[in-house]
Amino acid sequence: MDVGLVGLGNMGSAMAHSLLRAGHRVTAFNRSPGPATALASEGATIAATPAAAAAVGVVLSMLADDHAVETVTLGPNGILAGLPADGIHVSMSTISVALSERLTRAHADAGQGYLAAPVFGRPDAALAAKLFVVAAGDPAAIERVRPLLEAVGQRLFVLGPVANQANVVKLAGNFLIAAVIEGLAESTAFVTKAGVDPAAFVEVLTNSLFTAPVYKTYGQLIIERKFSPPGFAVPLGLKDIRLALHAAEDVAAPLPFASVVRDHFLQAIAAGWGALDWSALALVAERAAGVARKP
Amino acid sequence: MDVGLVGLGNMGSAMAHSLLRAGHRVTAFNRSPGPATALASEGATIAATPAAAAAVGVVLSMLADDHAVETVTLGPNGILAGLPADGIHVSMSTISVALSERLTRAHADAGQGYLAAPVFGRPDAALAAKLFVVAAGDPAAIERVRPLLEAVGQRLFVLGPVANQANVVKLAGNFLIAAVIEGLAESTAFVTKAGVDPAAFVEVLTNSLFTAPVYKTYGQLIIERKFSPPGFAVPLGLKDIRLALHAAEDVAAPLPFASVVRDHFLQAIAAGWGALDWSALALVAERAAGVARKP
Amino acid sequence: MDVGLVGLGNMGSAMAHSLLRAGHRVTAFNRSPGPATALASEGATIAATPAAAAAVGVVLSMLADDHAVETVTLGPNGILAGLPADGIHVSMSTISVALSERLTRAHADAGQGYLAAPVFGRPDAALAAKLFVVAAGDPAAIERVRPLLEAVGQRLFVLGPVANQANVVKLAGNFLIAAVIEGLAESTAFVTKAGVDPAAFVEVLTNSLFTAPVYKTYGQLIIERKFSPPGFAVPLGLKDIRLALHAAEDVAAPLPFASVVRDHFLQAIAAGWGALDWSALALVAERAAGVARKP
Amino acid sequence: MDVGLVGLGNMGSAMAHSLLRAGHRVTAFNRSPGPATALASEGATIAATPAAAAAVGVVLSMLADDHAVETVTLGPNGILAGLPADGIHVSMSTISVALSERLTRAHADAGQGYLAAPVFGRPDAALAAKLFVVAAGDPAAIERVRPLLEAVGQRLFVLGPVANQANVVKLAGNFLIAAVIEGLAESTAFVTKAGVDPAAFVEVLTNSLFTAPVYKTYGQLIIERKFSPPGFAVPLGLKDIRLALHAAEDVAAPLPFASVVRDHFLQAIAAGWGALDWSALALVAERAAGVARKP
Repeated sequence: MDVGLVGLGNMGSAMAHSLLRAGHRVTAFNRSPGPATALASEGATIAATPAAAAAVGVVLSMLADDHAVETVTLGPNGILAGLPADGIHVSMSTISVALSERLTRAHADAGQGYLAAPVFGRPDAALAAKLFVVAAGDPAAIERVRPLLEAVGQRLFVLGPVANQANVVKLAGNFLIAAVIEGLAESTAFVTKAGVDPAAFVEVLTNSLFTAPVYKTYGQLIIERKFSPPGFAVPLGLKDIRLALHAAEDVAAPLPFASVVRDHFLQAIAAGWGALDWSALALVAERAAGVARKP
Repeated sequence: MDVGLVGLGNMGSAMAHSLLRAGHRVTAFNRSPGPATALASEGATIAATPAAAAAVGVVLSMLADDHAVETVTLGPNGILAGLPADGIHVSMSTISVALSERLTRAHADAGQGYLAAPVFGRPDAALAAKLFVVAAGDPAAIERVRPLLEAVGQRLFVLGPVANQANVVKLAGNFLIAAVIEGLAESTAFVTKAGVDPAAFVEVLTNSLFTAPVYKTYGQLIIERKFSPPGFAVPLGLKDIRLALHAAEDVAAPLPFASVVRDHFLQAIAAGWGALDWSALALVAERAAGVARKP
Repeated sequence: MDVGLVGLGNMGSAMAHSLLRAGHRVTAFNRSPGPATALASEGATIAATPAAAAAVGVVLSMLADDHAVETVTLGPNGILAGLPADGIHVSMSTISVALSERLTRAHADAGQGYLAAPVFGRPDAALAAKLFVVAAGDPAAIERVRPLLEAVGQRLFVLGPVANQANVVKLAGNFLIAAVIEGLAESTAFVTKAGVDPAAFVEVLTNSLFTAPVYKTYGQLIIERKFSPPGFAVPLGLKDIRLALHAAEDVAAPLPFASVVRDHFLQAIAAGWGALDWSALALVAERAAGVARKP
Repeated sequence: MDVGLVGLGNMGSAMAHSLLRAGHRVTAFNRSPGPATALASEGATIAATPAAAAAVGVVLSMLADDHAVETVTLGPNGILAGLPADGIHVSMSTISVALSERLTRAHADAGQGYLAAPVFGRPDAALAAKLFVVAAGDPAAIERVRPLLEAVGQRLFVLGPVANQANVVKLAGNFLIAAVIEGLAESTAFVTKAGVDPAAFVEVLTNSLFTAPVYKTYGQLIIERKFSPPGFAVPLGLKDIRLALHAAEDVAAPLPFASVVRDHFLQAIAAGWGALDWSALALVAERAAGVARKP
């Protein structure tokens, strides 16, 4: 089917490939022209504005943060301006619950549809159509865009009619990933200080009770000290924890673990580790425990 | 082979079955006679004292806490007194690193072998020979008892020659399980307060990034509110977190997540939830967030 | 001297009295007319807009939050619009460091002076001219308004030329007050649970090492359970802790105690204690410890 | 009156002077003979054993920790052995609530009196008879020893008949001092990072709302970076926080602030700052915030 796509960063570009490969016709917009040009050679149409991409009728957006999503949606020549009356904006970025709520209202006021469909997974998963997609909003609208969401994901979870609940789930999920990293960071620093080979420790964990990919990925990164180049940099981790804390604060729910993680991300930035992967929480824990660092 | 077994609680009894089933000859001791009698009907020999069980040459102990292990090992007619000079005591209980160190010395002074081989898994896993066993101590001694450890476990991890490092790994692992529960508790309370169906949330988690059994087990317990009867009661969770904090304190390693979990276990006890499963951390998080409880 | 005053809430009105009593000529603006009318009977001139109050040349603002300060300063007929080129806006509200920075620039761009001069103290202290005033900004401007600041305060602290540093100090100070309350809340709940008369405990503290007014005030409130009417309500406490956390986050400084306090304020709100005084942190601590509440 | 004194460390020696100066006859015991000899030249009698010091009828003990108090009280030739049937042991050390309870029973079983009377104050306060003494236990016994307690203290607080409640109050009080230091450490690191002169910040605090000696003392230490020689070293601070956490755990009361402080003391030790004053919590906070240290 025809689909607009706004945002061709690592994630958006990978999704575009999966959409094209699944036979969809993609009309893509990106602020800087480079990524779109590359995509054009694979058959995508280039849109000059978000509005033009949205004019296709169904438009996916995948951008870095609230500011970017707000700009391409509500700004001049934005998605809101270009989307037809029965069109659907599928917002897939990791954004605040509050912004998702505002977009729901803005599109509704314009007689347009809005879905939140954030994803779990990295760009390589997007390229392999292996994302996990969590969608919420009008059920009929979700069914209409299902082929698109299934083209980029290995599984689609449908939550219910309130769009921003998908954002709540995404933020809560990212909080749990950060909590996994922090748990691994603290425990690995502890066992190392106690004389245990940290690689043996992670080997035990990831082959017994903690077999989930998230433990394997981050356990490995921590053991191999592969903090650079970052898969997901510290400031992005801090941003997501902040969004989770804000969303939870809005419903008066404390998240003590998130508060600890937030403080440790700040320590990482203060230590000059802001360009590293968010698994650099391990460096914060090692410093706290006085674990001598390998060269 | 011939093996003594001291401690026939839920875990010890289940291990005895697995040992017998694998063809080993078990000489078992339990403080109260009931469980041993039951076991005798399946072919086990009953020992009158820990010393008598240890006289077999290789003895496994699986008891509730430091106090019990100390008593059966160092007390009158204890393991130390009964074990032959070339015998091996395989300590499989979850005990403190400090006690494990003391037992190492005590057995070494008596010319005996001592191994720490704590396990991950519940009684049902012990019965199905599906435990994960983490062993440390003299490599030759580990090889000697390998058939026994493999008879109760699906996998044996061998750490190194310092026995108490296996206890460090066990305590760090239990800390991580508690951290998983706390993370689930906080995030589930948050999303529930934000209007998301908690069952849908756990469904997303456990079918995407958090596929490890520990998430499925505790996610399910929390959703179904099956806090009673406890699989592992709150005071046992508190005990293990305390042991982890003590072991980490001994090497000057802070565990901020463990401190949070400890405080929440205390809240659970203060609230009268001490007889519930340690997943009752969810109740603490729900109360903190003001989530209305289902009847 | 002539002085404009924008904001006649509890604090602003009390300050107005002190200014009038010291012989200054006050031109006051308040959004709702009631408080200004009352003040007029004591000799104050009523201004129809913030701009009119600012036209006097030196204008103090004392409002509830960032939004209010932003509106009266930068909005239509705001202070910025009415202040003469050599005029000075003395911002005395508890606002974010970021807004204070924006106001500094806005006034500088207009060739006007801007000082931050937040205060420590309650309305009764303002009425008794007993506030502590912390001022920062251009030293010459501070000297010019010194008589005004001294008219409302028992002591003026002058920090340096960067205005928003006064806001930093104010937020750090409020964080410390909240930390005192939390410390008292936790320790009082603990000793009460341990059988000690909490009044005796507070008596010991406030007559030995903890003689500062802040311990006496909040120790007394906690003992007497005078959480209502609030001197400073929970949501205001949460707001100030949030401002402190934001300001600290902007310079990558973690405040672990503030994170704990924030989570407990959220618990208080979730428990339905949002209308109580921020010393209701004691209720959160009592609930956590399972201290039976007096009727 | 006649009084035995066991323990002539910095505190005990200073108390001895105050007792002698007030006209009491002191019979003193110390494990190493040096301090007793010095005291003898001022009129004190030297006892060869704790039992001999206790034989006087009323004996004060002031020692470093649980182990020392247990040894001199219950060990061979200990206080218990030497105290007459109507004698009173006044335990003034900072010890665990649990040990105080055991001593209460041990002395009661021997028909002897036992009071807990820990103190707030440093050796210089003891020398100047300026300690704050918190006593609990049998009221008649307290009246009997009142002249002694008043000879070393500027004020005596009497709690009630359960001796160990004085220990609870002492531990809760020390926790609050540590919380003050941590609050100062965090806030000073924050304002410094934000460009504020930390000395000016402490000046504002200690001359406005935070006038208590404890803020002045530790604010000054932090500003002047006088962490060595320690007035009270990090491991002693950790010990006291641990005692407070244990006592609170025994009554199922969480102390989240104490958990944070505990973790930070461990960080200090891991960083090699174990020989510094406990105000070195400031170094932990500065490192966390990335505040450049002065040479």
